[in-house]
Amino acid sequence: MSTEFQPLIQSLRSGDPRSLARAISIVENRLPGWAELLKALFPQTGHARILGLTGAPGAGKSTLVDQLAKHYRKENRTVGIIAVDPTSPYTGGAILGDRIRMQDHFSDPGIYIRSMATRGSLGGLARTTADVATVMDASGRDLIMIETVGVGQDEVDIVRLADVTVVILVPGMGDDVQSIKAGIMEIADIFVINKSDREGAERVEREIRALQSLAIRSDHWTPSIVKTVASDGTGIGELVAAITEYEAYLQKENLVLQHSIENWQERLIEMLRDSLLERARDQMQDGRLAAYAAEVAGHKRDPYTLVEEIVSKIAKS
Amino acid sequence: MSTEFQPLIQSLRSGDPRSLARAISIVENRLPGWAELLKALFPQTGHARILGLTGAPGAGKSTLVDQLAKHYRKENRTVGIIAVDPTSPYTGGAILGDRIRMQDHFSDPGIYIRSMATRGSLGGLARTTADVATVMDASGRDLIMIETVGVGQDEVDIVRLADVTVVILVPGMGDDVQSIKAGIMEIADIFVINKSDREGAERVEREIRALQSLAIRSDHWTPSIVKTVASDGTGIGELVAAITEYEAYLQKENLVLQHSIENWQERLIEMLRDSLLERARDQMQDGRLAAYAAEVAGHKRDPYTLVEEIVSKIAKS
Repeated sequence: MSTEFQPLIQSLRSGDPRSLARAISIVENRLPGWAELLKALFPQTGHARILGLTGAPGAGKSTLVDQLAKHYRKENRTVGIIAVDPTSPYTGGAILGDRIRMQDHFSDPGIYIRSMATRGSLGGLARTTADVATVMDASGRDLIMIETVGVGQDEVDIVRLADVTVVILVPGMGDDVQSIKAGIMEIADIFVINKSDREGAERVEREIRALQSLAIRSDHWTPSIVKTVASDGTGIGELVAAITEYEAYLQKENLVLQHSIENWQERLIEMLRDSLLERARDQMQDGRLAAYAAEVAGHKRDPYTLVEEIVSKIAKS
Repeated sequence: MSTEFQPLIQSLRSGDPRSLARAISIVENRLPGWAELLKALFPQTGHARILGLTGAPGAGKSTLVDQLAKHYRKENRTVGIIAVDPTSPYTGGAILGDRIRMQDHFSDPGIYIRSMATRGSLGGLARTTADVATVMDASGRDLIMIETVGVGQDEVDIVRLADVTVVILVPGMGDDVQSIKAGIMEIADIFVINKSDREGAERVEREIRALQSLAIRSDHWTPSIVKTVASDGTGIGELVAAITEYEAYLQKENLVLQHSIENWQERLIEMLRDSLLERARDQMQDGRLAAYAAEVAGHKRDPYTLVEEIVSKIAKS
């Protein structure tokens, strides 16, 4: 193990938020030594429970997460929040929101919030989120909440690393969301109907139940449905209870380790892919990629044979 | 070149829809010989213009695409349509819609529609869509339309391979879509406000203009905004004119080849990644992946060192 990061790791373990921020930056931005840092931190992980929360823009994720954070703080559990919003690369909205939200919890070092707005290069966002969660875990946080926008493949990849996944819906989204909801069914351990004082909450609940009747989960868990009004705290207690209940179910059925193994199967493949991709990029430096692309675009070379040739080269490098 | 596919390639080039369907199935499902087939077809590509159309569920994409198809058929151009909907793996909605839509054009072999609803394995959907477009191009279609749901990273990857990208919006989606719209700005060559007879069309237009004033494209093109009511054909002529105008702009500024080279830079990297990933999966067969994952989940081994070790093995294989 490299000794370079020992001081950082020491203060990170003592719970120092600034060391946590620095370690996350190293890992998130792939600064020199990031892999060594993760290797050193890994043996200290496994303590934190990871909660994933996803929902469309405007579903009230941040407010809900903040309410949960306040609740868990009252139980003296330390909280780390990773807010992932890949849809807003331009506005910097996530960063701004981050600062506003941080003010709320500014006096409490037991809550640490980190926003990730980077759209990420090829498949990078889920991987980076997982690595940032690893750092938070190693820092001794009891609970990590990952909140993410929407339900694209990126988001599915991201929430997959959570122990418990909460999908947040709101009444009045209309019929057009039906197709999106279908994709959600497989990842939700708990459904939240937020802004449930709005008209249509009952209808959303009926829709969820109807969809549930179509699909049986391999772990035989029937996701609970909790109604909340996050802005005034209504239903937060019930949501906490539902989370606890699902965690107890996982424990009782011995599913925690199994879930973790399945998760690592996916992650190892992704890490392998990223690592190989890095080698591929190395092969393509110094304008070689542009030259190849020009040959293919000009129909002077077929890309399928070309890629085979490059792969052989990488294997030998 | 393999001679196995010569009869198929011959009838494919003569425009036979059944050969086209078979060739697409081979490529889409990675049936034996798919790579050989693509290699053989590639020299015959480059003729088709590729149009990408994207928008949220319910924006009226299919109707708009069908109207465009009818228009181009009147000009005697042959059309291929690839309908990508990764959000509905359960419902089979795309397949059903496919059949209904096919009936509409059943008597016209000049229109070929193919739905792809597969969520795809790691990063696979954009790649497969590109390969299917290659087959359609080689079959002599003049115009290929790729329609895709939403604006996640998957969709951005998919439309990137289009020569012209049309983003479809509808009035009355509310403020919550602002964040999604921001992500759209960079990929839209043309905006369509569909269902423009609804209240709020002017407002959507104002919002697009406001966003446009914030970002200048590297090619200095200002995307046009076309209002349509696809269901009754209103504005389709204007949309066709806007597409023609942008294509003329690309020609005039010599941007076609440049665009293609940039596109191939991305695609070559993706193809390389997929090819390397395949090698990685080979390394992980026979339960080896599950065994590794169990070691990591049990904290007996750190995943970062493990992946490095596997990569070294792959390089030597």
